[in-house]
Amino acid sequence: MQTEKKTRVAILGYGNIGKAVEEAVSMTNDMTIAGIFHHDETDRLNACHPDIVLLGVPSREVPGTAERLLSTGLNTVDSFDIHTQIPTVHKLLNDTARTHNAVSILSAGWDPGSDSVFRTLMEALMPSGLTYTDFGPGRSMGHTVAAKHIEGVKDALSMTIPLGTGIHRRMVYVEIKDGYSYDNVRDAILQDDYFAHDETHVIEVENVQALNNVAHGVHLTRNGVSGTTHNQRIDMTMTINNPALTGQIMVASARAAMRLAERKHYGCFTMIELAPVDLLEGGKEEWIKKLV
Amino acid sequence: MQTEKKTRVAILGYGNIGKAVEEAVSMTNDMTIAGIFHHDETDRLNACHPDIVLLGVPSREVPGTAERLLSTGLNTVDSFDIHTQIPTVHKLLNDTARTHNAVSILSAGWDPGSDSVFRTLMEALMPSGLTYTDFGPGRSMGHTVAAKHIEGVKDALSMTIPLGTGIHRRMVYVEIKDGYSYDNVRDAILQDDYFAHDETHVIEVENVQALNNVAHGVHLTRNGVSGTTHNQRIDMTMTINNPALTGQIMVASARAAMRLAERKHYGCFTMIELAPVDLLEGGKEEWIKKLV
Repeated sequence: MQTEKKTRVAILGYGNIGKAVEEAVSMTNDMTIAGIFHHDETDRLNACHPDIVLLGVPSREVPGTAERLLSTGLNTVDSFDIHTQIPTVHKLLNDTARTHNAVSILSAGWDPGSDSVFRTLMEALMPSGLTYTDFGPGRSMGHTVAAKHIEGVKDALSMTIPLGTGIHRRMVYVEIKDGYSYDNVRDAILQDDYFAHDETHVIEVENVQALNNVAHGVHLTRNGVSGTTHNQRIDMTMTINNPALTGQIMVASARAAMRLAERKHYGCFTMIELAPVDLLEGGKEEWIKKLV
Repeated sequence: MQTEKKTRVAILGYGNIGKAVEEAVSMTNDMTIAGIFHHDETDRLNACHPDIVLLGVPSREVPGTAERLLSTGLNTVDSFDIHTQIPTVHKLLNDTARTHNAVSILSAGWDPGSDSVFRTLMEALMPSGLTYTDFGPGRSMGHTVAAKHIEGVKDALSMTIPLGTGIHRRMVYVEIKDGYSYDNVRDAILQDDYFAHDETHVIEVENVQALNNVAHGVHLTRNGVSGTTHNQRIDMTMTINNPALTGQIMVASARAAMRLAERKHYGCFTMIELAPVDLLEGGKEEWIKKLV
């Protein structure tokens, strides 16, 4: 690979995800960092002429940002994680990418992302049956933000605890602002729509930062039917550093995006639409020999 | 799907796999059986004008049979399982398929097959590290056949027992022919190349058929590095009816083959070269909504 032209990767947004993307690119032989940019630096970004832009911006900013970049013919990868909006965003970015001969990889994280691929394979192997996705234990970004917005909360951390069959417990650790009572804060959290539907425990602590840990995990199971044969079982567990895995998957997906662009196969793709071998560095023949 | 034209599937070879393919097709809404044929009936097979032929013939007959069918422009799916020969067969069938505008899906079983896809994803998520594939407990076809060929063996069954880190124990159950001694049979098995490299136990039984059971399983693990972050772990276990899963995967792969043929994307593909969503019945948009 050293003799081939390296893919020039721009990183837009430099929080946990942007830093993890930078680390993952640094471990490849086929990519190089073209530049790292903050949200508002799209002019500087365009000036460095990257082959592809990896988005480390918050999920709610992904659709607008990706659409703007795709409109200038730049390829993009994101880890957009608002599951319910994926079909709409997929259609939007697909239209824009096709119009401008670009490739967008949408929702390239671990869930949505690689878990989606595992769920797809489970469905293909056992077309009738039940799949359960049990997250955690690990910090939920969405629930943590929701808890931080409750009046009287100085800092918060919401842990997701798996109880099986897709049911989760929320353990919310809070620092209370001076002048507010624990009881009022707890009641406000329990009534918030993010927490009202799950078993939720609110625990007051002196220092939320001391609990900081980006470890996460997931457990996927399916018991289903292959052909007419029941009781086929598959069970998958991951225990991971959350941003490191997300950054790695975005970088692998950038490789797949470049290969689709080379084949002039433009549009927006989720990970279940990608050939897995295209995620890997180097020649397909070597991987067929090693992995098949 | 009911209003669309159904894919006409021919089954060539009607042993365990052929029967499992028939069952899996019967559970779909987008395929129908065009005909079921024995090895030597390729003329009758051609006369029924199938869209695709699913091969239930022994692995060693797959390359020749697939090449002959592809040469007449027929698409094929097989579950060829001689790992070391896959790269050569892939190249051979790819050339033939491209020349005749056909699609071949090679080694579409569970290993090689869906396990290959899991290994590819594990590699993409954690590019440095070690993957172990531990098979069983379950009956090994290759080792069973090898044991049956030993002089003095009336019937045999070789079970694969996983010891972890890719190391396996072989439990060989044998019925001894009249006039032969257990000691001689045991020594011949232990010296056979199939068994000489693993811990092997040979056990005399009165009736091998009474042990018959097509249950099998596999345990795949990887502990690796995402970006620069070590100790990322993934662990996958399947416990399955072996021919039922193989037949199901061949049928799902036939669907992917038809979609590639529609796109005039001819050639030979292993499962790591297929977009997982193409394995599933029905529209891509619905699956993105449900699985991503």
